[in-house]
Amino acid sequence: MQLTPSQIERFREDGFLILPSLFAPAEIAVLREAAATVFTEDDPANVREKLSGEVRTAMGLHLRHEVFARLVRHPRFVRPAMQLLGDDRLYVQQVKINTKAAFEGEIWQWHYDFATHHAEDGVPTPVALNLHVFLDDVSEFNGPLYFIPGSHKHGPAPTRLDTATTSYPLWVVDRDTVARLAAARGLVSATGPAGTALIFGDCLVHGSPPNLSPWDRRIFSVILNPIANAYTKTQRPDYKHHRALTPVAPLADDCLLAASVVAAQ
Amino acid sequence: MQLTPSQIERFREDGFLILPSLFAPAEIAVLREAAATVFTEDDPANVREKLSGEVRTAMGLHLRHEVFARLVRHPRFVRPAMQLLGDDRLYVQQVKINTKAAFEGEIWQWHYDFATHHAEDGVPTPVALNLHVFLDDVSEFNGPLYFIPGSHKHGPAPTRLDTATTSYPLWVVDRDTVARLAAARGLVSATGPAGTALIFGDCLVHGSPPNLSPWDRRIFSVILNPIANAYTKTQRPDYKHHRALTPVAPLADDCLLAASVVAAQ
Repeated sequence: MQLTPSQIERFREDGFLILPSLFAPAEIAVLREAAATVFTEDDPANVREKLSGEVRTAMGLHLRHEVFARLVRHPRFVRPAMQLLGDDRLYVQQVKINTKAAFEGEIWQWHYDFATHHAEDGVPTPVALNLHVFLDDVSEFNGPLYFIPGSHKHGPAPTRLDTATTSYPLWVVDRDTVARLAAARGLVSATGPAGTALIFGDCLVHGSPPNLSPWDRRIFSVILNPIANAYTKTQRPDYKHHRALTPVAPLADDCLLAASVVAAQ
Repeated sequence: MQLTPSQIERFREDGFLILPSLFAPAEIAVLREAAATVFTEDDPANVREKLSGEVRTAMGLHLRHEVFARLVRHPRFVRPAMQLLGDDRLYVQQVKINTKAAFEGEIWQWHYDFATHHAEDGVPTPVALNLHVFLDDVSEFNGPLYFIPGSHKHGPAPTRLDTATTSYPLWVVDRDTVARLAAARGLVSATGPAGTALIFGDCLVHGSPPNLSPWDRRIFSVILNPIANAYTKTQRPDYKHHRALTPVAPLADDCLLAASVVAAQ
């Protein structure tokens, strides 16, 4: 799994890539089963919605389930990340499933990840990559990510810490900046069937609407960051920024297939 | 302006029609100017958002501005309504602009209009038509209406009065019903450039997401109801269900053009 030169060019221009069908239906079935298990757990790494109490984000997953321990080392995630970063020494910074329960899932305000990584964790430069795979079909109706294409080129925008809007404290981008960035190239919603993957960078401004639909929306996310760019502050819990600076090594391409996962357990 | 047989057939099947470019840019400019005037007014018929205090719905507009007095009698609204209802004696039941301010506009929960018309106003049967025209471009990003196509065929669904979610009390449809109706034919978002029009019936289940985008979303709406099917209760203010049972008579097709409006003022 290597990105093509035109994909790399698009990533540099837009700040993100949408990769249809990166994971097969059989692999998604394995991931969904593991997700169902971790969501039932009573764990502080399961962050719940402010209003409904439903799980909003289940974190630290590679330390909680063998399937996710493999997924963070999946070559279809790790090799493109190494390729885009030109660096083979990456660590697993954060591993989660962001879910938006049908009818319940709330918004993520306009933000970019580096604002939090820098302010909370002391990450020096905005190079970490956020790699997603959809566990459900994601449409315009069930809370897709909205990207502002090209917004990463304007460098880190001003932010403020919002602890009120949802249950998850977030460094958010102000409205004037969102309006200015979106005026250039509009907005893009990242949609596609389960198995679709996303890669986006640490300065890309994004947000997402609530889920008014009757369909759940679960997205797995791993953030990979160069060890040379590691955290310098440890004020957040390990499950929000993992301390282990072990270089991630890609597994075999079939590492999620049920037989090999079962054999490992 | 008459609907074609295939449009009428689609309305019967889907419960709604989307009519691109029903109003021209010059007409939209006139409507926007009038909208800006009524939005600045301190009037109980300007219902404000729960959180921001921005105007959410400006009502009773045909009694507040000559442009809207003309728009409710516009032949591109009135003639299709007469045609669909097979009735020339319609009254103007409600006239409003629903706005969703950039970044601020909140949701409309899943509902259908007849639940309110019946419970609050004692309207006997679900035949009223809701006719919209977009005053702004409406995209997936700035809070479009979501329709459940075919939902009107299942008759009035169970509802409950929700006075908590937003500033506007609304008879809403429960989640199980929304899930069941949407399972059949999915959801459709009503999007298009300014000037696009919608017609939908009194039992069509619909809702809309908040506006996270930097772009305002204003939609004009007139509800036309047969005089033979008029209200039997008057507990709501006149601007929510007008008392006058005067048959609406279509004006000339150019009735919104600036010169003729100015001449009338």
